Amino acid sequence: MENADQLGLSVALQEAQNGYKEGGIPIGAALVRIRDGIPEVLASGRNLRLQKSSATLHGETSALENAGRLSAEVYRECTMYTTLSPCSMCSGAILLYKIPRVVIGENANFKGDEELLRSRGVDVLVVDDEGCKSLMARFIEEKPQEWYEDIGEIYSH
Amino acid sequence: MENADQLGLSVALQEAQNGYKEGGIPIGAALVRIRDGIPEVLASGRNLRLQKSSATLHGETSALENAGRLSAEVYRECTMYTTLSPCSMCSGAILLYKIPRVVIGENANFKGDEELLRSRGVDVLVVDDEGCKSLMARFIEEKPQEWYEDIGEIYSH
Ligand SMILES: [Ca+2]
Ligand SMILES: [Ca+2]
Ligand SMILES: [Zn+2]
Ligand SMILES: [Zn+2]
Repeated sequence: MENADQLGLSVALQEAQNGYKEGGIPIGAALVRIRDGIPEVLASGRNLRLQKSSATLHGETSALENAGRLSAEVYRECTMYTTLSPCSMCSGAILLYKIPRVVIGENANFKGDEELLRSRGVDVLVVDDEGCKSLMARFIEEKPQEWYEDIGEIYSH
Repeated sequence: MENADQLGLSVALQEAQNGYKEGGIPIGAALVRIRDGIPEVLASGRNLRLQKSSATLHGETSALENAGRLSAEVYRECTMYTTLSPCSMCSGAILLYKIPRVVIGENANFKGDEELLRSRGVDVLVVDDEGCKSLMARFIEEKPQEWYEDIGEIYSH
């Protein structure tokens, strides 16, 4: 991985780890503007379903929300880093703002709408990061019902 | 339109009108659970970009956020009503939660990801409502830059 990618993913993973410590779903993201190879973290965020009873603040949407209002030009210079493959909503948010590149920590625990992103020209890199994978796997084992709720799946125990 | 649809769309339009009065982008939505033909408005919401400097609270995501945490089963009995054709993010949110039906006030001012929704089995009805259309057209004429920002498009004046 390049330096900018290591930075972006480490910020996203830190968010996920903070979320886990809060008892939340450990998925984090970072919106990073890269110009002349120099990364600037515009915002980061984490899944807040359990902390805020939120149905829309996933890692990626949380990072976008924390970035506040940005003009269209800024998003087009950004990479979205996320610890887990983006769901349909977060993929749609990436498409809405025409973010050209997404770096995904892992897609072993969940595979989102990566193919839709690629089909619309987004550059998608899956890193298969052990830290992202083990944290998420641990959460899913501990709180499967909350995880199913987060992805709109019916939980039958 | 059926009674449930008239109710749902009128709640969405009321949200849009309230948003306009606040100086916001006038797009509203309502999440309505329909059982045995009887509609229950679970939540409604409106675009809050200008009111809250929010990049993620569109009409539909705002309604989902206001509905709070719901189990997967509930969403599958819902219809999402929205005054304007849902953007990629909001379409993705509808797909995430497997909401089976979307009623759209109009798609003349903006056409979102309706085809993606249909291709994944969502029942999409476009009403072509004059009230929705004229309110949105008025806003776009008054504040084109804010509108472009909301859909991630570059504004050149
Ligand atoms: Ca909430
Ligand atoms: Ca904000
Ligand atoms: Zn998501
Ligand atoms: Zn939207």
